[in-house]
This record gives sequence, structure tokens and C-alpha cells, in this order.
Amino acid sequence: MTGQNPDRPRAGAVKQITSHSNPLVKEIKGLVGMRKHRTQSGLFVAEGLKLATDALDAGWSVRYLALGPDVRDNDRAQQAAARARAKGALILEMPTQILSAITRRDNPQMVVGVYEQKLLAPQDIRPEGTHVWIALDHVRDPGNLGTIIRTADAVGASGVILVGETTDPFAVEAVRATMGSLFHVPLVKMSREDFKSFAGKWPGTVAGTHLKGEEDYREVEYLSPTLLLMGNEQAGLPDDMAETCNELLRIPQLGQADSLNLAVATAVMLFEIQRPRLKL
Amino acid sequence: MTGQNPDRPRAGAVKQITSHSNPLVKEIKGLVGMRKHRTQSGLFVAEGLKLATDALDAGWSVRYLALGPDVRDNDRAQQAAARARAKGALILEMPTQILSAITRRDNPQMVVGVYEQKLLAPQDIRPEGTHVWIALDHVRDPGNLGTIIRTADAVGASGVILVGETTDPFAVEAVRATMGSLFHVPLVKMSREDFKSFAGKWPGTVAGTHLKGEEDYREVEYLSPTLLLMGNEQAGLPDDMAETCNELLRIPQLGQADSLNLAVATAVMLFEIQRPRLKL
Repeated sequence: MTGQNPDRPRAGAVKQITSHSNPLVKEIKGLVGMRKHRTQSGLFVAEGLKLATDALDAGWSVRYLALGPDVRDNDRAQQAAARARAKGALILEMPTQILSAITRRDNPQMVVGVYEQKLLAPQDIRPEGTHVWIALDHVRDPGNLGTIIRTADAVGASGVILVGETTDPFAVEAVRATMGSLFHVPLVKMSREDFKSFAGKWPGTVAGTHLKGEEDYREVEYLSPTLLLMGNEQAGLPDDMAETCNELLRIPQLGQADSLNLAVATAVMLFEIQRPRLKL
Repeated sequence: MTGQNPDRPRAGAVKQITSHSNPLVKEIKGLVGMRKHRTQSGLFVAEGLKLATDALDAGWSVRYLALGPDVRDNDRAQQAAARARAKGALILEMPTQILSAITRRDNPQMVVGVYEQKLLAPQDIRPEGTHVWIALDHVRDPGNLGTIIRTADAVGASGVILVGETTDPFAVEAVRATMGSLFHVPLVKMSREDFKSFAGKWPGTVAGTHLKGEEDYREVEYLSPTLLLMGNEQAGLPDDMAETCNELLRIPQLGQADSLNLAVATAVMLFEIQRPRLKL
């Protein structure tokens, strides 16, 4: 779309931004602040040079790359900017205060990128070999979701399926918590109904944790490929979703805590499922 | 201190709060917003009826219990209020908007408590039997800290040691992430120097995760009592702290993530250390 408006700088250019009221500043702020803006535009914001490099390495499309004054002489940042420009991104040089306003942080990152969202289509999931997929039912907290994507990457999982009404994986807090793993881990969206039929055809173990789970999560054999289904922060897995699992498991606990944090429980499960394959 | 000021309502009373400018509202807001206020007063704020009940059950002192209009007829909330009153707390009935302003949430919890902070003195740590203690060096993120306290509770750990300059365990975000486990898990503060001498006298395994760790965390014997030392989010364990460990371990990973989230890594370690003792 860039370039259709004659007032709009062309792709690959470098533009100096000096005012908070610049329409590009407003556009990026909208992407940070409102899910609706992200959904309508198909864009999202990720902070930091590391994430910009991860995105470029993984072949994601960069729409804008905003740079603060502190990275004018930073070789790695300039290299990322050159790569982004070469792929058609608009480079925005701006003062720290505007970066701060965009990302709502007192000490903003000096590189802030706007990227095109990417989701895998459900029919492109190919469960095979020792693949592990994670399905999250109605996950609500963006920090939990981002942390789970990061853990999925760390254990070599194949992707994360967002089932039903979930928090936005492209929200700034979620992206931040992925620490760049967003660019490495395929994401899929599915309704609960579609997930039920998808899980019904899964060739290996479909494992879920549930209060009614009678088996210890360390005492079952996870048949490959494995699909791990986790319920949400408030309610766990509802019964109809639990029925899609062929193993309902429990993580034993001591102490007085009622439950584990969702990202923690998912990690404990993933490290168990991948236990035979994780080696130093 | 309550009661010294003649304008101040007496302990155990019920007071209607109608204005945002009420000094008690300002006091509680200060506790939410500023660490300095928490440190000076020795008080902190925890949201929710569950946490109020946990606090009362565990014998923590309640200074104020603020109640919103939605719990005027809620038996459990009124019971908690009666218990808090009996122990000298001042009950504050207030409209939703004021609760919302205090906790900076659009949908505030209808029960918000102000409690006295409690720390265990370092000399009161008694490492014995199968006790597990967790030490966190310079932990920075309140959500991570709260989640680790929750996990510590879930695996039956004996307590958490905050080493050096750490985020405030009594910050609202940290307390929220503990989901009530703050009231069950003893916390200790220690300088790095004090920790080094403390760890030097530890009778069992002192385990740390470190990039230089050459042993798989699943392949060592954790001698009881066990002390787990975790580095912080940005830098991991500095060398002088790593030297306090008699086992330097690594959690194997696949994929492209550089590292795990701190709360996740701590949980993976804790579930391994407690593996023989966790049973359904």
C-alpha cells in the first residue's frame, strides 16, 4: 500500500520524524495501543535491535524501522536498517521522546520495528515425526502467551495453536515476552469447533492437564507427534475441550498453591514431553 | 500507630469513603505506586478476596480492608471483613471508581487489603531434611518474582532468598503474580556478600544454572537440603556468584531461543530437584 498516497514517503527511504503529530507516529502508536488497529492493518510493533535482526533473519516483512538518536553510530543497528531498507522498509529517525511516547516506556529501545503479521493456515500443520505442537485454549494474558512462545522455541516445538478467543499474540507485551521467538515459532488460529475435529485426527498423543487428570504427567508415554492442550489462566480446560485429549494428566504439587502459572505449567509439560530429545 | 491521631478512625471500625481526596485513599495509592512508601510504612497492598482469606488464615496483620459495593452482600467477603476487624483492621467501604483509581485497574477487585510486610531474618533459615530454598540474584521483574514465589509454594519449597538489589516482592504486580503464595512462602533479604558466606556453609547441594555449566540439570544428585541459585533476567549469574555453587548446571535446549524466561527456568529446575518427592 505504501506509495499510493503522494504525501507518503516512498518505501526504502529514510525520513526524519520531529513531531508527535506526524501521521506515522500516530499510526505506530495505534498499533501499540489498539488490537483493532493491528487486526485491520495486519501489522504489529516489536521493540529492540535483537528482534529486528531476528525478524530480518527469519524473512519477516518490515514496514517501518524507527531509530533513536543513540543508534545513529551503532554498526549493528545501521546494518539492520540497511537490510530493512533494501527490502522496502521506510526508515524513521526520531528523537527519544517520540520513541518513548510510541512504546509507552520511560527508557525506550532505540530500534522499534513495524512488521507484517504472519499466521500459518490450519491446513498447513503437518504433524509428523517427533513434532510437538502446543494448543492454548482461550489464553488471556499476553505475557503468558509470549513466554509460552519463547519456551516452545527453546524446546524445539513446531508451533502454537491459539484456540478460540485468545489474547493477541501481536500485542506489544506478548511480542516482548517472546524475546524474538515470535519470529521462529509458527502460530495458528482455530475455533474450538475446528480444534476438536483437528485433535480428533491427530496421529499421536493429545495430552492435556486437568484437575480430573488421574495420571502423573511423568508416567505416560507421549506418542509422537504430540499435541499438548492447555486450558486458560482462570478456568483450566472446559470439559468438552478436555474430551479431545487421549491423556488427561496432572502435575503433582506440594504446598498450598492452588495451581501453577500457565506459562510455568506449559513449560513443565513441554520439558517432560521433550525429555528424551533434550541433550547437552 | 493507628489511633494516635484523633482525626483518624479507630482500629476495628468501619468507615465510608466517598472522596478520592480522602487521606486514606492517598495513603493506599502511595503504597501501590511507590516502593518508597511501602518501605517507609512497612505496608503493602494485595488485591482480592482470595488473598485476604489467605492472609488471614496465615496470620498476617491486616491494616485496612477496602470493600467495593459489589461485596456488601457477599458472605465470604463479609466474613473476611469481620475477621479483619476483630484483629484490629479498619474496614473501608468505597465506590468502585475509588477502588479502580487505587489499583489502577478498569475492573478492580472488590476486596483490596493493606497488610504489614513480613520478612524472615537470615539467621532464622534452618536448612535441614529435604528443604529446598531458592535464591534469586538481583531479580528485576516483579511478575517473574511473584510467579517464582507461586511455584516455590507449589513444589513445597521452604522459602525464597532475595539477594542484592532486587525488585520489591511487595509491589502490586509481584503480589498479584503470587496468587496468594506470598502469604505461605517465607522471604529473606540478603546482600551478595552475606549470601556468599551463607552459601559457603550450606550443608547440601548449592545448584546454579549457568552458561558455563557443563552438567545436565537432570544428571546430578541434589543432596538435601538443596539451595537453588538463579541469576537475573538480563545477565544470568555473575562469576563470583556462580562460584558459590557446587553444581553449575545447564538446561538443554533445542530451537533458536537464547534462553528461557527466569520464572520458567526456575520452575524447570525446581520440578527436577523435587522430582523424587512430587507424587499424585
